[in-house]
Amino acid sequence: MTCPAQLIRDRGGRIGLFVLDGLGGLPHPDHHRTELEAATTPHLDALASRSSLGRIQLLPPGITPGSGPGHLSLFGHDPMQLEFGRGLLEALGSDYPLAAGEIAARGNFCTLDDAGLVTDRRAGRPSDDECRRICQMLSQQISLDGVKVQLLPGKEHRFTWVLTGEALGATVTDNDPQVTGLQPLPFVAVDENSERTAALASEWIGKARQLLAQEPAANGVLLRGFSTRPEVAGFEEQYRLRSASLAIYPMYRGVAKLVGMEALDAGSHLTDQAEALRSAVKDDYQFVFIHHKDTDTAGHSGDFDAKVAAIEAFDSVLPQFLDAGLDVIAITGDHSTPTTMKEHSWHPVPLLVHSARALPVAGLRFTERGCLDGDIGTIRGPELMPLLLAHADRLDKYGA
Amino acid sequence: MTCPAQLIRDRGGRIGLFVLDGLGGLPHPDHHRTELEAATTPHLDALASRSSLGRIQLLPPGITPGSGPGHLSLFGHDPMQLEFGRGLLEALGSDYPLAAGEIAARGNFCTLDDAGLVTDRRAGRPSDDECRRICQMLSQQISLDGVKVQLLPGKEHRFTWVLTGEALGATVTDNDPQVTGLQPLPFVAVDENSERTAALASEWIGKARQLLAQEPAANGVLLRGFSTRPEVAGFEEQYRLRSASLAIYPMYRGVAKLVGMEALDAGSHLTDQAEALRSAVKDDYQFVFIHHKDTDTAGHSGDFDAKVAAIEAFDSVLPQFLDAGLDVIAITGDHSTPTTMKEHSWHPVPLLVHSARALPVAGLRFTERGCLDGDIGTIRGPELMPLLLAHADRLDKYGA
Repeated sequence: MTCPAQLIRDRGGRIGLFVLDGLGGLPHPDHHRTELEAATTPHLDALASRSSLGRIQLLPPGITPGSGPGHLSLFGHDPMQLEFGRGLLEALGSDYPLAAGEIAARGNFCTLDDAGLVTDRRAGRPSDDECRRICQMLSQQISLDGVKVQLLPGKEHRFTWVLTGEALGATVTDNDPQVTGLQPLPFVAVDENSERTAALASEWIGKARQLLAQEPAANGVLLRGFSTRPEVAGFEEQYRLRSASLAIYPMYRGVAKLVGMEALDAGSHLTDQAEALRSAVKDDYQFVFIHHKDTDTAGHSGDFDAKVAAIEAFDSVLPQFLDAGLDVIAITGDHSTPTTMKEHSWHPVPLLVHSARALPVAGLRFTERGCLDGDIGTIRGPELMPLLLAHADRLDKYGA
Repeated sequence: MTCPAQLIRDRGGRIGLFVLDGLGGLPHPDHHRTELEAATTPHLDALASRSSLGRIQLLPPGITPGSGPGHLSLFGHDPMQLEFGRGLLEALGSDYPLAAGEIAARGNFCTLDDAGLVTDRRAGRPSDDECRRICQMLSQQISLDGVKVQLLPGKEHRFTWVLTGEALGATVTDNDPQVTGLQPLPFVAVDENSERTAALASEWIGKARQLLAQEPAANGVLLRGFSTRPEVAGFEEQYRLRSASLAIYPMYRGVAKLVGMEALDAGSHLTDQAEALRSAVKDDYQFVFIHHKDTDTAGHSGDFDAKVAAIEAFDSVLPQFLDAGLDVIAITGDHSTPTTMKEHSWHPVPLLVHSARALPVAGLRFTERGCLDGDIGTIRGPELMPLLLAHADRLDKYGA
């Protein structure tokens, strides 16, 4: 327990946690600067000169966090102690309040050839409207004995598969082979209730393929990350903070809801988020989580300049964020996504904490290497929230 | 658990772990540079400028590791949770596959005076041939009721004492007083089976002293580190790495075997090890542990210049090691042995990790103080292997 409950006050400053997804990077092979080092960030530089800097180790050294575990670590949980799956996060992100006992899985429409081999795991990326049409059709036309399957449409080929019924388990393997050229895998379950889920999923997939046979591209279905809703302490009871998220993408709204935040409308751009932040502070939210996705997207694409641009875009809106009335500003990432690797990595992420109680070190920028010399040092993910509560004057001292 | 088994991939890069025994040092009283700081190491310097740097804390702060615990910590075990003794490591190092239930102890031939006091704990360092002759003689001429004692000769005064029989315990104290001018100590046991071992060891020592009475120097025997073989997870099942050791000294071959490595012939010099490393990589070993003893030997002797020379000797062969076809290079120590202390110490050891995924910090050398500013920070011993697996692209991310 990194923050004893009896120390937490029901008053104090307002905290904004800005998560630049996949923020950390590695040196470019030509000029040896990271994305943060190469970016022109006058506002971040000025803020860094008045802030505490450090790094966050989200999971143990060498262990690379997925987006869910990365955020849960920032929110104060040990993700390696917490069972949860992709399906759950997708459901919550689609504003579906997965109930205890319900099963959710992340779905992809895919393309199968005549031999049943996957030729495109994303079915040529159908439009959102197409996705919605197919989800609705399958939800309405397939019935299974004693249970209900709903499809919640997502962007392009993505949807959430929700199974409602009695005595259902979630320990079921994916049928997604993760590569093309293979058939979808059989579902494998390890206990009796999960065998029931696996059998129902197989039956449903069979009926779905019949209905999709005439589709030009989306003629198959891949399911992964079968999950239920775990017990997670809510943000308000854990930290006595009335909290909200300003995330544009469903996955991050989902993880915020999982820890008890209200998912506010964040619009579709950083400037919308800045406007929404100002309103949230006015509406007396005491903690706001603001999520910026573009840094991660560029990292996955391996596009160094795009990641630099995503950082600079955040920097350009930073003055508006700073003007929203927060008392404590934290800026960090949920994991690194170096453009040289094109995937998440285990490298610790930079951390900036600005408040009237910060201890700046002269000459440091908010970069992977600049933060090495900051006064915070390297902390574990679950140590962030107590630090932010302290900066917000929301923690009593321990002992007399 | 620092590395969940389900994340480990059965593919990825090849890892070389170079352990410079007793690597860490302290400032020389005259010029205030450590051995690493005083050494001229052009190849290490160049490698450091392209590597991640940090430090390893092998045991909790202030706790000095023996060689066995130091290596086991590097290999991913918590040595303070693992019961094992010097005798076991010596036996394995002598290529004796200690069976469950057998007892091994590290033996020294020593010199006793007429009053039975130890005057030389190493019996004037007899030749290896002398040691072999005496070991053979004692093994053949002493018989004990219902059990067998074998002596495995080592270098100079060293041997391994192996007791084979039924219902034997290993919780027996040493008879080695560790200093001259005292009599050998009595064996003390804490449980019934160990009392049996202590009684047999006493009886054996009595018979050995009779047989050794005519020897000019080696007229006594000291035993320490009574041990059995513990249950240890093997390297291959733990990390899915086909692994090998290139250690010249038996003790380190022993600890490598204990964790399931194949102990390859390492020749007798660094250049032999470099050649053997090239072959091992060709033979598809995915992890190779290379051990360099001279740094520790010089540390124990308190010979600052000799330790500098041992470091420089490693540096001069480094290009050959780098050319062997490894994807990840880690260089560190199993503990510090500062020449100013002439013994092991608790100070964290420097760590260098080179791979395509490293984050170098400009201007740092691979020294005790240079590594303080590296991006790895100070990690615990068992956190090294996950980090190396990550650098070798052998770990999946955790969660979606």
